[in-house]
Amino acid sequence: MSGLILHPMKEIKIIIEGEHLKFVSDLLDKVKATGYTVINIISGKGHHGFHEGHLMFNDTASQVMVFTVVPAEKVEPILSGLGPLFDRHSGAMFVSDVAVSRRDRFIPEKP
Amino acid sequence: MSGLILHPMKEIKIIIEGEHLKFVSDLLDKVKATGYTVINIISGKGHHGFHEGHLMFNDTASQVMVFTVVPAEKVEPILSGLGPLFDRHSGAMFVSDVAVSRRDRFIPEKP
Amino acid sequence: MSGLILHPMKEIKIIIEGEHLKFVSDLLDKVKATGYTVINIISGKGHHGFHEGHLMFNDTASQVMVFTVVPAEKVEPILSGLGPLFDRHSGAMFVSDVAVSRRDRFIPEKP
Repeated sequence: MSGLILHPMKEIKIIIEGEHLKFVSDLLDKVKATGYTVINIISGKGHHGFHEGHLMFNDTASQVMVFTVVPAEKVEPILSGLGPLFDRHSGAMFVSDVAVSRRDRFIPEKP
Repeated sequence: MSGLILHPMKEIKIIIEGEHLKFVSDLLDKVKATGYTVINIISGKGHHGFHEGHLMFNDTASQVMVFTVVPAEKVEPILSGLGPLFDRHSGAMFVSDVAVSRRDRFIPEKP
Repeated sequence: MSGLILHPMKEIKIIIEGEHLKFVSDLLDKVKATGYTVINIISGKGHHGFHEGHLMFNDTASQVMVFTVVPAEKVEPILSGLGPLFDRHSGAMFVSDVAVSRRDRFIPEKP
């Protein structure tokens, strides 16, 4: 019944241009985030004005939201790793509290 | 002016393969969640490796995120109802605190 | 290194019919929310029954989720501004706590 217990974690949402998705997924791999989900953004407005996405794959011009859930201690390494990207490109990172049903899924297995 | 008061509720995000959407929507109907929203996932990485979605309807191969908001007492029945699905298939459920403007929209009407 | 400090803000998610996106983006501009992101909803169920979206641009028949992050004092003006829309059309607004890496991005610059 351990699946019915909820464990506190951190939910991270990262909004970036699609062309930088590999930078972000490499970073998440490096800090051993165990998974992530990419959502397409159809339009939006930010510091660089209004933009409209395109519903095509591999369209590096559009923006995406990368959604991941990690233990609290991984927030700082992710934020810190995004620094060089955010220094040069538009983007933002949001952190919120979340509870997950299967904590083991979010903790990397011992090698 | 009751619309201006915010009421505490629970936000639930469920990530599943598209082919199991009916299982989840049936469960949400059964526990009388009053609504849900389905978002397409364009790509991601989880316990089953990298996947890429398809931006087509009825594409049961892709993953989706089901988003719903319910009173706190419905979290356990939903989590419990997802158990049989999560035992056999990839997926995850995330719970966070949220406030809503129209509480009545999230409480089923008396029959 | 100020980018590594996280600042508390409010995350707002607004679910509306696509045809009302301009109403919402005008409101966000008016309250000086510094940005927002629009996500397509592929299907869902609410007070108006089941609906299925369309993955096309300018499809005003589909529903969208507008995601924005603002300082706490902007929540009430946004909620209040949505009142006339929600009185006549389906939709909902959700507020949750979130932390952001670059607070200055979410505070309008002085004119």
